[in-house]
Amino acid sequence: MAAHDDASSIGFGIIGCAAMTSKFCRAVSFLSLAKVTVRAVGSRSLDKAKEFTKRNRLPPSVMVYGSYEQVLEDDGVDAVYLPLPTRLHLEWAVLAAERKKHVLLEKPVAVDVAELDLILEACRSNGVQFMDGTMWLHHPRTRKIEDIMSDPHHFGQLDLVHSTSTFAANKEFFENNIRVKPELDVLGALGDLGWYSIGAILWAAGYKLPSSVKALPDVVRNSAGVILSCSATLYWEKPQQEGGNKQPITIATFHCSFLASLSMDLEIIGSNGSVRVKDLAIPVDEDTASIEFTPRAKFAELHIGWDTKPEKVSVPTELPQEALMIREFTDIVRRAKISNGEDRAESKWPEISPKTQVVLDSVKRSIDNGCTTVHTLNV
Amino acid sequence: MAAHDDASSIGFGIIGCAAMTSKFCRAVSFLSLAKVTVRAVGSRSLDKAKEFTKRNRLPPSVMVYGSYEQVLEDDGVDAVYLPLPTRLHLEWAVLAAERKKHVLLEKPVAVDVAELDLILEACRSNGVQFMDGTMWLHHPRTRKIEDIMSDPHHFGQLDLVHSTSTFAANKEFFENNIRVKPELDVLGALGDLGWYSIGAILWAAGYKLPSSVKALPDVVRNSAGVILSCSATLYWEKPQQEGGNKQPITIATFHCSFLASLSMDLEIIGSNGSVRVKDLAIPVDEDTASIEFTPRAKFAELHIGWDTKPEKVSVPTELPQEALMIREFTDIVRRAKISNGEDRAESKWPEISPKTQVVLDSVKRSIDNGCTTVHTLNV
Repeated sequence: MAAHDDASSIGFGIIGCAAMTSKFCRAVSFLSLAKVTVRAVGSRSLDKAKEFTKRNRLPPSVMVYGSYEQVLEDDGVDAVYLPLPTRLHLEWAVLAAERKKHVLLEKPVAVDVAELDLILEACRSNGVQFMDGTMWLHHPRTRKIEDIMSDPHHFGQLDLVHSTSTFAANKEFFENNIRVKPELDVLGALGDLGWYSIGAILWAAGYKLPSSVKALPDVVRNSAGVILSCSATLYWEKPQQEGGNKQPITIATFHCSFLASLSMDLEIIGSNGSVRVKDLAIPVDEDTASIEFTPRAKFAELHIGWDTKPEKVSVPTELPQEALMIREFTDIVRRAKISNGEDRAESKWPEISPKTQVVLDSVKRSIDNGCTTVHTLNV
Repeated sequence: MAAHDDASSIGFGIIGCAAMTSKFCRAVSFLSLAKVTVRAVGSRSLDKAKEFTKRNRLPPSVMVYGSYEQVLEDDGVDAVYLPLPTRLHLEWAVLAAERKKHVLLEKPVAVDVAELDLILEACRSNGVQFMDGTMWLHHPRTRKIEDIMSDPHHFGQLDLVHSTSTFAANKEFFENNIRVKPELDVLGALGDLGWYSIGAILWAAGYKLPSSVKALPDVVRNSAGVILSCSATLYWEKPQQEGGNKQPITIATFHCSFLASLSMDLEIIGSNGSVRVKDLAIPVDEDTASIEFTPRAKFAELHIGWDTKPEKVSVPTELPQEALMIREFTDIVRRAKISNGEDRAESKWPEISPKTQVVLDSVKRSIDNGCTTVHTLNV
């Protein structure tokens, strides 16, 4: 029986041989016991697809196609991985869904939430699972931070979230990368890096949408108008509580940039404790990631130190975070496949992606309007 | 010869027995070899002054006064330490300067920069040294960060500064502390904690004043109108450079609050490296303080980690930072005393305090005006 005939095995079709696709293939290689394989690789150029297959040492059983269409026509393909430039997501994600292929879509998922809604509707109406490629959500560290934040005694009420997602791109990137080409990816650093910061802030806020967002004026664009660096604040209005001492508004701030040295800070301050991560989206080490947790610290007597030291919590991971993401995705796909569609798609993933996209759109609108306040729910 | 007759010894007069005064006395006790002593303690109540002297085990040689005036009249007092409520700073700092006493003034130094200017003018015209009580500036860690930031290869151009200064005050604080009483300290958390954040941001920016500041809308006041929590952004406009890829504006953000768990984060991101400190104003440990420094990090191949790990730089200190501050202050005072005023006051300290105050005033004005943009140079 061929792998693709076994209902419990999941064959991936790759649509586009972007740089990140090699990372995807490596992650799949960790999942052979979970019966997840790369079934097909498609590029607009057959030579490029062949070269990719060879360079990534994919087995000879992998189908190699010189078009994206052929990947979607392959009955052995259960799900597609789509690392295409953002502007191509709508077309190919919808086509994949219509061919009943489950969709693992790289971030930023769409040019705007209207396009994303079309993709999600295509997935929904065709009964296929949607998931965006935000890997860190699948790292066990993320669960650990959720545990910490759910402890009223050691963390408490959310006070502030601050996130940075930056790296210093080189000359080659600024000249050739798809992320700075408006015809391929209109969102630039906001889409590529801001996606992480906005997603992290929303996750920390329990996916409650902010009331409004406001870009800060440190926006940099390249000559083609693509955002290379920007910052924004997000506000959540809260009902004023009795006594007047409670915070009627919670804020979050973020900064994303192709023009600064590598940083992936996430700082979450609560009323009783705080959590810091320095490498959110891509941990420094692959096998373990750390959290700095400071529960209930006070100044020592005379204010000559702290009575509680920030503690380092290390969270090992059995698999790289992208393999965990693919495993989670394919577990859902497998249930759907085995049950012949009776087992419904997991609603969490198609629900959180548009929230991130709505806030991202709002920040972009604020930037385009000269850093005005944009009410998120009006987008 | 009495201590105060020895020109090289410096006698401090304490004006007010606030909680922080005990910390001051402890710091002075580290400086006996440097011939720095507490000469006199003054309170509005003689009993309170006596009780303070006893509780802090000050030697019997210390003069104990039931008024502030008597401290200023004591010829053995070379310099005063003023931990009074902010609203009393103008009166007592000016009186001290007029009595030719050097002035070590607790932060926040004044209600506004107009008052501070009067204090500084009194110090200048009377030839006495002024220094504010910002202790962290004197910690050797601060020099180490300056060294790191001056390295163009491993740090580069400043991209972003973010600072938090928060602690969770208790019920007793909200009911009785001078920092939440408008008749004593009108600046609340902005003066007490924001002073640290604003000072740190200015220090990181080489004391270049921002072009403008803007408070964020998460302002909380108590029923008497005192600020308990607030945030702001600071902007530096830069001349647009050729090519359009350079950042025309640098931003900094800060959050200060009596309503959140203890945090003293300072994050400084440069074009080539970044620096983080988690305990800026009061280090977790008294004898050593750490910096997290990340020079020239890039993603590892395939983006499965970082090629450079953030490194922890530990900076030991021979003395507590407040003792280093007092030693630096009294070294200047001693030079002035020995030279009979020929050796001029150190201009650095009276120059940086009003810069912090101007930005603080601007943030307060922004808050009072409903979070409008305030151009710093117009304050």
